[in-house]
Amino acid sequence: MILFHPQSTNKEGIYEQEIEVEGHLIDSMILTKIFDRIMDLKGDFEVKEFRIGKMKRDYSYAKLMVRGRDQDHLRILLEEMYRLGAFLPKVIQVKLVPAPADYILPDDFYSTTSHPTQIMVDNKWIKVKEQMMDKVIVVDRKTNLARCKFIREVRRGDLIVVGEYGIKIKPPERPREGTILFEFMSSRASSEKPSISIVKQIVRDLYKIKKEGGKIAVVAGPAIVHTGVDLSFAKMIKLGYVDVLLSGNALAVHDVEYVLFGTSLGMCIKDGSVSLKGYRNHLAAINEITKVGSLLKAVKKGILKKGIMFECIMNNVPFVLAGSIRDDGPLTDVITDTFQAQQKYKELLRDVKLVLMMASTLHSIAIGNLLPSTTKVVCVDINPAVVTKLTDRGTAQAAGIVSDVGTFLPVLVDQLERYPIK
Amino acid sequence: MILFHPQSTNKEGIYEQEIEVEGHLIDSMILTKIFDRIMDLKGDFEVKEFRIGKMKRDYSYAKLMVRGRDQDHLRILLEEMYRLGAFLPKVIQVKLVPAPADYILPDDFYSTTSHPTQIMVDNKWIKVKEQMMDKVIVVDRKTNLARCKFIREVRRGDLIVVGEYGIKIKPPERPREGTILFEFMSSRASSEKPSISIVKQIVRDLYKIKKEGGKIAVVAGPAIVHTGVDLSFAKMIKLGYVDVLLSGNALAVHDVEYVLFGTSLGMCIKDGSVSLKGYRNHLAAINEITKVGSLLKAVKKGILKKGIMFECIMNNVPFVLAGSIRDDGPLTDVITDTFQAQQKYKELLRDVKLVLMMASTLHSIAIGNLLPSTTKVVCVDINPAVVTKLTDRGTAQAAGIVSDVGTFLPVLVDQLERYPIK
Amino acid sequence: MILFHPQSTNKEGIYEQEIEVEGHLIDSMILTKIFDRIMDLKGDFEVKEFRIGKMKRDYSYAKLMVRGRDQDHLRILLEEMYRLGAFLPKVIQVKLVPAPADYILPDDFYSTTSHPTQIMVDNKWIKVKEQMMDKVIVVDRKTNLARCKFIREVRRGDLIVVGEYGIKIKPPERPREGTILFEFMSSRASSEKPSISIVKQIVRDLYKIKKEGGKIAVVAGPAIVHTGVDLSFAKMIKLGYVDVLLSGNALAVHDVEYVLFGTSLGMCIKDGSVSLKGYRNHLAAINEITKVGSLLKAVKKGILKKGIMFECIMNNVPFVLAGSIRDDGPLTDVITDTFQAQQKYKELLRDVKLVLMMASTLHSIAIGNLLPSTTKVVCVDINPAVVTKLTDRGTAQAAGIVSDVGTFLPVLVDQLERYPIK
Amino acid sequence: MILFHPQSTNKEGIYEQEIEVEGHLIDSMILTKIFDRIMDLKGDFEVKEFRIGKMKRDYSYAKLMVRGRDQDHLRILLEEMYRLGAFLPKVIQVKLVPAPADYILPDDFYSTTSHPTQIMVDNKWIKVKEQMMDKVIVVDRKTNLARCKFIREVRRGDLIVVGEYGIKIKPPERPREGTILFEFMSSRASSEKPSISIVKQIVRDLYKIKKEGGKIAVVAGPAIVHTGVDLSFAKMIKLGYVDVLLSGNALAVHDVEYVLFGTSLGMCIKDGSVSLKGYRNHLAAINEITKVGSLLKAVKKGILKKGIMFECIMNNVPFVLAGSIRDDGPLTDVITDTFQAQQKYKELLRDVKLVLMMASTLHSIAIGNLLPSTTKVVCVDINPAVVTKLTDRGTAQAAGIVSDVGTFLPVLVDQLERYPIK
Repeated sequence: MILFHPQSTNKEGIYEQEIEVEGHLIDSMILTKIFDRIMDLKGDFEVKEFRIGKMKRDYSYAKLMVRGRDQDHLRILLEEMYRLGAFLPKVIQVKLVPAPADYILPDDFYSTTSHPTQIMVDNKWIKVKEQMMDKVIVVDRKTNLARCKFIREVRRGDLIVVGEYGIKIKPPERPREGTILFEFMSSRASSEKPSISIVKQIVRDLYKIKKEGGKIAVVAGPAIVHTGVDLSFAKMIKLGYVDVLLSGNALAVHDVEYVLFGTSLGMCIKDGSVSLKGYRNHLAAINEITKVGSLLKAVKKGILKKGIMFECIMNNVPFVLAGSIRDDGPLTDVITDTFQAQQKYKELLRDVKLVLMMASTLHSIAIGNLLPSTTKVVCVDINPAVVTKLTDRGTAQAAGIVSDVGTFLPVLVDQLERYPIK
Repeated sequence: MILFHPQSTNKEGIYEQEIEVEGHLIDSMILTKIFDRIMDLKGDFEVKEFRIGKMKRDYSYAKLMVRGRDQDHLRILLEEMYRLGAFLPKVIQVKLVPAPADYILPDDFYSTTSHPTQIMVDNKWIKVKEQMMDKVIVVDRKTNLARCKFIREVRRGDLIVVGEYGIKIKPPERPREGTILFEFMSSRASSEKPSISIVKQIVRDLYKIKKEGGKIAVVAGPAIVHTGVDLSFAKMIKLGYVDVLLSGNALAVHDVEYVLFGTSLGMCIKDGSVSLKGYRNHLAAINEITKVGSLLKAVKKGILKKGIMFECIMNNVPFVLAGSIRDDGPLTDVITDTFQAQQKYKELLRDVKLVLMMASTLHSIAIGNLLPSTTKVVCVDINPAVVTKLTDRGTAQAAGIVSDVGTFLPVLVDQLERYPIK
Repeated sequence: MILFHPQSTNKEGIYEQEIEVEGHLIDSMILTKIFDRIMDLKGDFEVKEFRIGKMKRDYSYAKLMVRGRDQDHLRILLEEMYRLGAFLPKVIQVKLVPAPADYILPDDFYSTTSHPTQIMVDNKWIKVKEQMMDKVIVVDRKTNLARCKFIREVRRGDLIVVGEYGIKIKPPERPREGTILFEFMSSRASSEKPSISIVKQIVRDLYKIKKEGGKIAVVAGPAIVHTGVDLSFAKMIKLGYVDVLLSGNALAVHDVEYVLFGTSLGMCIKDGSVSLKGYRNHLAAINEITKVGSLLKAVKKGILKKGIMFECIMNNVPFVLAGSIRDDGPLTDVITDTFQAQQKYKELLRDVKLVLMMASTLHSIAIGNLLPSTTKVVCVDINPAVVTKLTDRGTAQAAGIVSDVGTFLPVLVDQLERYPIK
Repeated sequence: MILFHPQSTNKEGIYEQEIEVEGHLIDSMILTKIFDRIMDLKGDFEVKEFRIGKMKRDYSYAKLMVRGRDQDHLRILLEEMYRLGAFLPKVIQVKLVPAPADYILPDDFYSTTSHPTQIMVDNKWIKVKEQMMDKVIVVDRKTNLARCKFIREVRRGDLIVVGEYGIKIKPPERPREGTILFEFMSSRASSEKPSISIVKQIVRDLYKIKKEGGKIAVVAGPAIVHTGVDLSFAKMIKLGYVDVLLSGNALAVHDVEYVLFGTSLGMCIKDGSVSLKGYRNHLAAINEITKVGSLLKAVKKGILKKGIMFECIMNNVPFVLAGSIRDDGPLTDVITDTFQAQQKYKELLRDVKLVLMMASTLHSIAIGNLLPSTTKVVCVDINPAVVTKLTDRGTAQAAGIVSDVGTFLPVLVDQLERYPIK
């Protein structure tokens, strides 16, 4: 019989295991979470060694003895510890098992966190690529490259990481000198923060990222058109502050409706009046694009002359419109297969430094699942529950703003114009 | 035995009564509500006569026979009809009974609606003054003046209207040519309406009211300070668009804290940084005002030099700060007795044409109870439930905007500056 | 030149047209909406004839002259009137134009409402089948059958209804004797209604529908599992109160996770404790089903022995799991193409009398778009904005309840057990 | 010139000060917050000494050198440290200054936190009584007793604590073996937790507190009556689980209306039907109580025979009804002066172990300001923003449940009946 935790010892009914952890243990709350978790799980611990980082930038180090009441209890305790960044003093090779069939995982598969992860292969720590939460890690033995895969990407014979050994997770650290926004917003989402100041902080962050050559992705919902700020967003794209646009059918349909007819769901954006046959404008918008074949062709043929999709196309900003079951149409540009759309989202999110989510619940949650914990997230929504859900990542990398995109976006773009990057 | 409804007839077990109603019966939904209510209450009706207004501005008239299954059922039906604007063909004098003691009502007291009401005294229809909902009507027989009173205002011997006769209610009518905002917003509160267009409509309405010499009251919560737009609101007062300010302790305390220390609950409004001993600033703000005695004296002594309360005082805008149980302090200007504060609110609301409610639940609800249904209400709040509650008055006189006051108010004031009234 | 409205007359600069309308014009607010709309659009009208239904069950009839300031203005006015149920005195044949290509509509296509609609073909009124909102009407000239089609269903040569003539809409009527729930809930969604009484009313409605052989569809979100009431819902299915289940991947994955491991997203449902490797349970749940191939096979092989999906399969309740971009996995049972999933939803919704929507925003909105206005909708959600959005259909057929599904569902099922239908 | 921080040293332009802190520094996040705060404020630190508690129950100890860029910066840093529980190695006597007049504080007054606080007087640490947030500490030199006072309680000559020295705060610690609920709910408020399990945990906590002789206070809003669970709450009182009831006029008025007329705001609670003259029932309820003089007299005279207020009176449960500006009436039992009501609340909250807040925003926030951080708080509301606001105390002592009180309370009381304490 193989012992699950080969290093754990059983001395006269005591099940214990030594673990180590290092990093900014205190202020990044790593040690707090480890102690918390042991107590929550009714385990016990002893601090065998502790060296605290003397200066602000120094790492701390701790060696703990964790004790459970039996083998299973200790297993639970240790597995939780590993996910919080602890590791065994004597490193073990990661275990790899081939997938028995397409889409099917070995029973003991390892499920990933969103934190940067390394695995021990051939006595070397290998960084896992394309880190995402709730995926599996597949290793290519020829190249010794490891990356996260969706279940649907798993193919028969893929070597999948199993068990909990030989894996080291680096929980996100509190930035030593954070971008101002994230310090400022360190508490939770609130509608009682000074809005203009927050906008200014976001602008400084966006500017800094662009100056350093970083990529910004924007997730945007159709409320941007309904609330009358289609052209504000279009200007943000033109200003060069959007490198990737991730959205769905509705944003593009309403943008086209607004550009072609001046309405949103039939209501005139300018003065709220009812327009001739306004109720059919969104179907007519879809029809105009379908006639020419795509948004790109509509721009080329001079049908679309302004607006969000126009600016994306003119400024070579790649976009993905993911299908959803509530779509009208949809436009021919929409990827109706949700798995394909996920893949396309993931591809465009590569190397993105910051994701700005505005008034879009479905697509924002989808994207949250595709991001490593190191990517910054700024979420703006009128519904505090959405903001909390999207920014509650246990990191200092997420800021939530409860605001009305219809008044927020013009203020943002007005500020962005003061920081030209082109 | 006195028959409750003296005009109702009982023909072989059928309990029926003829009623009349007139006005814009169709588009103001008066008749719809009457038919609805009868059906909800499982009564029956027959339309005896109906003249529809031929042109847009013509009144309609209906005579209905209402039938119940017994005397009590008919009573319920009729009382509901009266409250919806129906009246008996043959008018009866209103019945008055003296209050048996201070604060105590005769058992059969009549409870008011917020709609304009007339009572029949000495064969004449008398208009009830200070119309408010859920109050009683007191008649002075010497002057034959009638007005609404709070229970706490009732004194022994006051002649109180009882029963349901001799009372005529005029339900609010759909404006023939409404101010644009209220047409525009005719549907319910929404965060998916074009924000900038709505602001422009509000501005046109405010301007129109001021041009016609009307009064505007503003109810404002402390979020105006927290979200960093204290000075925007101050400018709105300076521009002459606020005739009355109704609020509580918190708005004034935070305004003073902001003016004296630049912080709101200790956070620097300008850049979100922490200020020296910021946590005690709101108590210190109270202390500074208490030392000199009042906000007025603080302005006079040059302690307060800008901000919301400063502009009220400099521009002779009367204000009431009503106490609440969650107050710190409170300031000496606060009326801590809630009944006295209610009286003071009511007094200042007299002749107000429009109430703008911003980010204040408690005081806005209080004011809703003090307004006749003819006063316009515009409510701005980030919480859709608050907006719905405050504008759901069954009239075309209320508009709700789900928005963030921190971005909404600067946009509003920016527009107001284009419509100078001073 | 063809006159747009062939019956409208132009007498010395007056553009006017006579229209008729009949039904429960007053209490179903048909006439109110017609008058409202004309005034909103700044048109004018004259009532030429009006016969009011004398008794509760009698229809009313009106003939109106509508006037616009020019031809275009009159067109807008009339098109709005038609959508509200008005029609021209002299009936015109509907106009049909073939689709120029697959998915492409003739420019003047008619966009449907959700209300029962008839079209005039060969001098006969034909009822349109599969009524849905924002679709087009396609007529088969061989059989003279008309039905609503999605844009994506349109094939080259399909005869599409264009223009606004020869079309008669029947707006929903206030039920003369509504099921109790919908009377009771006639006002809007509220969290301040007596919860237990509402549950009892829903139960009576569900029972009545089943007794009369009607079909009930349920839309359910994963919160049903998270809040710990998976087995309550399973019992509801077993009791025979669910004829169709419409949902997505998450409900099924969490149901399987709960059944196999007792957890929901890794948290033990029973006592909230953390389970061994709980964080990977939802992926493991997907893996178990993928291994055997489908939920059906998992039931047949004895892997799934209880829960929501188990009861659906055992009781022959058809279900559709629609894919979304935020899915993990997804399960092999999920339809990942959103257009195919829409089609499947539509198919199962045929003949459904009532849709109960619980804690599911995305799928509920999708379904709202697929329903005629005659289908009853009951929506239960903790978020008042969702409830309002889903039940705000301008009909007396929708009831919204703001409640916590975790305490609501057990109370509902407890009551349902008292009304056995099997 | 007096140095502000007498122990801080200035070595060649370096402004630094040694501080100490002890307790469960890691898992109670005390040290995390200290490090965080220094970094937020752009200060620097060095860990001079650190002893970590080896076992779960051992205290840790740290000595830090904090550095600022100048005297003012260091002051800010240190004052923040003190509020987080740090203290100076060499203790200084607290400084006391007499209040110059009634209600007026010395300029440098110390503003309290809600955490247990000690002050150094005559070389002894004295525990401050009646700990509340945002108050001042007054010391009686005769008895050397210290307690928190509201500004309004301050009288000329009262000795007020000023400055930041000689004060030691004990931040709340994570319970070593928490009551289960608070462990379970350790994350934030959520509507996606297993409701029934949570109710069971609350019941176990309430039972444990009562068994140990602890006091439970309940804050309750009128939604308890509107949602039809008046009698459930009445039963909870009868079962002995309510030691103090804190509320306002509305709860009592609606309770009386329900008991006397079976309605809530005129709607029949039992079946949602309309009652005869229902709209005046809440005024009539007030009138009935005013006639006899008080709720107590109404019970004695047999007018009130059941319900919430009846059970309070019959079971000697003290209650306070605080006035608010939105009140109708109010009842004679209501304290209309908000400052008096605050005082009365505070008095009844003395020694309370747990406060259960249900569906009441105003009174719950008021009470939050009166509680030390050691009192447990459980908050149940349908609005997630209210729950977050009320439980966001940075302690492990608060649990929030987003639920509908109308279905939550019956389930709670059903469980409480299984744990008889009488």
